[in-house]
Amino acid sequence: MLIVQKYGGTSVGDLERIKNVANRVAKTKDAGNDMVVVVSAMSGETNKLIEYAHYFSKTPSKREMDILLSSGERVTASLLAIALQEMGYGAVAMTGRQAGIKTDNSHTFARIESINTDTIKKEIDRGNIVIVAGFQGINENGEVTTLGRGGSDLSAVALAGALGADACEIYSDVDGIYTTDPRIEPKAKKLDFISYDEMLELSSLGAKVLQNRSVELAKKMGVKIVAKSSFSEGEGTIIAQEDESMEAVLVSGIALDKNQARVSLRDVPDKPGIAADIFTKLADEQINVDMIIQNASKEGMTNLGFTVPQSELVRAKKVIENGVDHEIGGADYDEDVCKVSIVGVGMKSHSGIAATAFSVLANSGINIEMISTSEIKISMIVDEKYGELAVRVLHDAYELDK
Amino acid sequence: MLIVQKYGGTSVGDLERIKNVANRVAKTKDAGNDMVVVVSAMSGETNKLIEYAHYFSKTPSKREMDILLSSGERVTASLLAIALQEMGYGAVAMTGRQAGIKTDNSHTFARIESINTDTIKKEIDRGNIVIVAGFQGINENGEVTTLGRGGSDLSAVALAGALGADACEIYSDVDGIYTTDPRIEPKAKKLDFISYDEMLELSSLGAKVLQNRSVELAKKMGVKIVAKSSFSEGEGTIIAQEDESMEAVLVSGIALDKNQARVSLRDVPDKPGIAADIFTKLADEQINVDMIIQNASKEGMTNLGFTVPQSELVRAKKVIENGVDHEIGGADYDEDVCKVSIVGVGMKSHSGIAATAFSVLANSGINIEMISTSEIKISMIVDEKYGELAVRVLHDAYELDK
Repeated sequence: MLIVQKYGGTSVGDLERIKNVANRVAKTKDAGNDMVVVVSAMSGETNKLIEYAHYFSKTPSKREMDILLSSGERVTASLLAIALQEMGYGAVAMTGRQAGIKTDNSHTFARIESINTDTIKKEIDRGNIVIVAGFQGINENGEVTTLGRGGSDLSAVALAGALGADACEIYSDVDGIYTTDPRIEPKAKKLDFISYDEMLELSSLGAKVLQNRSVELAKKMGVKIVAKSSFSEGEGTIIAQEDESMEAVLVSGIALDKNQARVSLRDVPDKPGIAADIFTKLADEQINVDMIIQNASKEGMTNLGFTVPQSELVRAKKVIENGVDHEIGGADYDEDVCKVSIVGVGMKSHSGIAATAFSVLANSGINIEMISTSEIKISMIVDEKYGELAVRVLHDAYELDK
Repeated sequence: MLIVQKYGGTSVGDLERIKNVANRVAKTKDAGNDMVVVVSAMSGETNKLIEYAHYFSKTPSKREMDILLSSGERVTASLLAIALQEMGYGAVAMTGRQAGIKTDNSHTFARIESINTDTIKKEIDRGNIVIVAGFQGINENGEVTTLGRGGSDLSAVALAGALGADACEIYSDVDGIYTTDPRIEPKAKKLDFISYDEMLELSSLGAKVLQNRSVELAKKMGVKIVAKSSFSEGEGTIIAQEDESMEAVLVSGIALDKNQARVSLRDVPDKPGIAADIFTKLADEQINVDMIIQNASKEGMTNLGFTVPQSELVRAKKVIENGVDHEIGGADYDEDVCKVSIVGVGMKSHSGIAATAFSVLANSGINIEMISTSEIKISMIVDEKYGELAVRVLHDAYELDK
């Protein structure tokens, strides 16, 4: 089998931990696998370099930031290769460029455009373990680019896809994806399997483990991800396409997003272009709108609600007041809300899931301010102070601890 | 004018010092010059990375060391570019590869084979200051290589040569080349000018400022070097071809090398091949022989003396004992010696220089154990405990403080 492993910053946080990673890699190699290992910078390094840059400028040039930040992963990659060589394994370190990773020109947030795997394949054929500095590539002009936060995951998934690897194991300090945040609900259970779509909807649960861009890329390329801890021996969580033959789990997990603020616009004239006008103005100010809800129209007027990140509420308010206030009946704003989401591919065919949620929350005296549903998700905006309680009662109601 | 400047590790040792370097660069740019700036890693960084590697292996692979060690210069280059941009200057950071530096395949001690200056020239034409990460390049396979200790000087000299720069200014924490080590002779004087050849002979004086490989390359490419301090405003020392029209200075400086051990072989059969045999055996053991002196033959026997670094004396002794001892009359070894050298292009045509040296040392009761001369240098091996005294009386005799 060809296995791509990726070790995050905490997993390679110091020299001893890099040694530990070398032992893990060696074990997988000893089991007869071909291996490509992607590494992040040692934890803290990237932040240190960013601080250095901010000593000189609040807005350092992105082109130079890429040369700066790409150095951390190179250090880890070469150290891991040296550790493995000392243990008697053939190992070669490669920069993103040497690994054939070509990106577009968006410095500090580049997208991988193609991977020329010739050099990696040649080294694998020689029996070598290939260690790749994550998070980086070069653009068409040969300039160093980086892939943004979590970019090493992207490197790993893209390499696994390009190489047709059998699995892409993503190691961090968390041993998998849980039904909800264990700090909120101690009975939260680790999932053995979760589909790409569920994982994308649950991103707030898994953000520490995997970012959406990586899951999207894995889905697109059909790469099976295994999220594991480098500090324990558990099986982790498999993130892959749902298996049609299995009966889908009704609910996989409950997510909580506290960084939400609600905007409600009353008596908005129900004519074409008004909603477009509002959201264009918000987009122009680079305000990220999350949920959008519009009720059925009544006497030519409708109510329009949406959520934005709490930090962007003040700016959103200004946009509404200056831009559309005179056209609508009124607006109110609530910073103290949060979003509770129930995620599960099985809910597509089970209408009872939503009913359960609403009655469970009602029984706990939690008022639902907004509701939005997709095929595999139900999201509800509730008072921020009830967020954690909502997670616990829902976790219980769907018996996720079983 | 096109100026290449190079700032060493101490000059960019912390963020404040990098800011200071940015101010210096800006000043030269403001004077109307085009500029290429080569930087070392922040002082301590390279040693830290070497320590990291040694945690895993006593003999880390050179290929991986190059990926590891080349990261430090990239950090400094991007930070300096960011600092200059913030000050309103156009600046672009480049890795060795981006600067077009191609080397041979000798990892950790690569030689520069060619420089494609197209990208640098394009940026200069745009009015940008080009900041190059020193010490590094890539080989024909696109693998990262480094140039060995002091390699950033080589990068600077090679770039100055390839670009036809008007000067190559090498900044360190020393403000130039002195007539001797000021810690030994407080009256030592900074030289305004020294020839390449003198500089090469005086390398033990200037090692902290410039390594021989850089001076040799500068001589070969006709690059005028100016050695300056980044911490003061002095004019520094110009290192260039001696000007035939000027009357050459008789003696430029006095150098002391304490890392010397003497080997004297008595009654060596004076026939072809014996000396070759001895030095081949020493070379096979990678023992660096410095001075070699053979006296005129007497009755078919000759005395052969040479010096080696003190740390290699034990191994040299073993080579002699196992290899040639039975063919010669005897050998003696002295670890406690040092080499005092008088350097000056003017001595080519002045025979009195040597006589002065011998009588001055004799008057101070210092016995000369070995003598070796070249066109521009007289080296003498003396008892180690008299080394510093010898430097002082010679410095005085040639009136170098005047």
